[in-house]
Amino acid sequence: MNAVDLSVYLVTDRGLSGVRGVRDVVLAAARGGATMVQLRDPEAKTRTLVVEARALAGLLRPHRIPLIVNDRVDVALAADADGVHVGQSDMDVRDARALIGPDRILGLSITEETDLDRSDLTLVDYLGVGPVFATPTKVDAAPPMGMAGLKRIAARTGLPIVAIGGLHAGNAADAIAAGAAGVSVVSAICAAPDPELATRELAEIVRAARAGRA
Amino acid sequence: MNAVDLSVYLVTDRGLSGVRGVRDVVLAAARGGATMVQLRDPEAKTRTLVVEARALAGLLRPHRIPLIVNDRVDVALAADADGVHVGQSDMDVRDARALIGPDRILGLSITEETDLDRSDLTLVDYLGVGPVFATPTKVDAAPPMGMAGLKRIAARTGLPIVAIGGLHAGNAADAIAAGAAGVSVVSAICAAPDPELATRELAEIVRAARAGRA
Repeated sequence: MNAVDLSVYLVTDRGLSGVRGVRDVVLAAARGGATMVQLRDPEAKTRTLVVEARALAGLLRPHRIPLIVNDRVDVALAADADGVHVGQSDMDVRDARALIGPDRILGLSITEETDLDRSDLTLVDYLGVGPVFATPTKVDAAPPMGMAGLKRIAARTGLPIVAIGGLHAGNAADAIAAGAAGVSVVSAICAAPDPELATRELAEIVRAARAGRA
Repeated sequence: MNAVDLSVYLVTDRGLSGVRGVRDVVLAAARGGATMVQLRDPEAKTRTLVVEARALAGLLRPHRIPLIVNDRVDVALAADADGVHVGQSDMDVRDARALIGPDRILGLSITEETDLDRSDLTLVDYLGVGPVFATPTKVDAAPPMGMAGLKRIAARTGLPIVAIGGLHAGNAADAIAAGAAGVSVVSAICAAPDPELATRELAEIVRAARAGRA
């Protein structure tokens, strides 16, 4: 199992990043203390994804922040990214792990409690659990599970969890209290007036909440 | 370079296959003498693609017909398919070849003459050249190049060519005369009343045209 710091886990969004662009947002987040970055762009062509993954990996390497690629194992391998995140409709974790090898990070989305029984979780390094709250940034998202759902799932697994879906500075501490190791955000950073500052605030909230829980 | 028989190259289409389903169409085409099959389903989720690729590979193996996966190197590797076909917006052939290794088939789409200079063709086993004619089965297709365009491109490369775009029993012989080694079809088989018979007719036309050229 690969160790991961899920504290502030940015998922990229081309639309929400607007004119400043995904790379600028990622760089700002890296400076602000993001601990992981996931490239997610389900509409992009493969060639564009590889170019973007390579660019982000280059930006993040000096910060020692892992780059995770959503869904696309081929893109992750071509760009030599640090890992892959798969959902319940993406590649099965057995196939994904076989392709990426033991040393890359593998994350799995859990959208309801029964998902915990659908995959071989011994192959997975962390779980993305949600949506905790309704979110406009994923059109085919499952129904929100609330903090209660997050807590129920966290109680059933020893894997580190990043909470996802409608998370922001105002509810991040609750997610940590519910058992998450960190929060995954899209708009709370991508659409923030100052992504670096927004990341710094989130990182501080998560740090304090984890210290309070420990 | 891997040897390929491009004579009758079926590209799958879920919509056009209708209620009989892609697997039944592929099996009929295999019995009718198809020489290669490409799984193409740009709308499908990754998990579905892997399941479908494994199913088709299992169907085709007894017929010794190679299964090629469109665009998705990860799906091809997970399903242990025989190769990958990439377009100009898909993974660069250097990246694709590095991931699939030397022994899998790599095909590249050429939509205009200048595409011949955009990729390292020494890494490629065959070219898919077209669209020769306008086709409704690919929404983002390039403008048709006609038989003249096909002929021009065939004259500039030693790689085996499969002609694609609006090909059917009525124009397959012309494509062979223009320099193609075979024809790639979607609706001419998928939407045929009898896909096995349609494949058999195409195979005979291509065989006769290649014999006439030789």
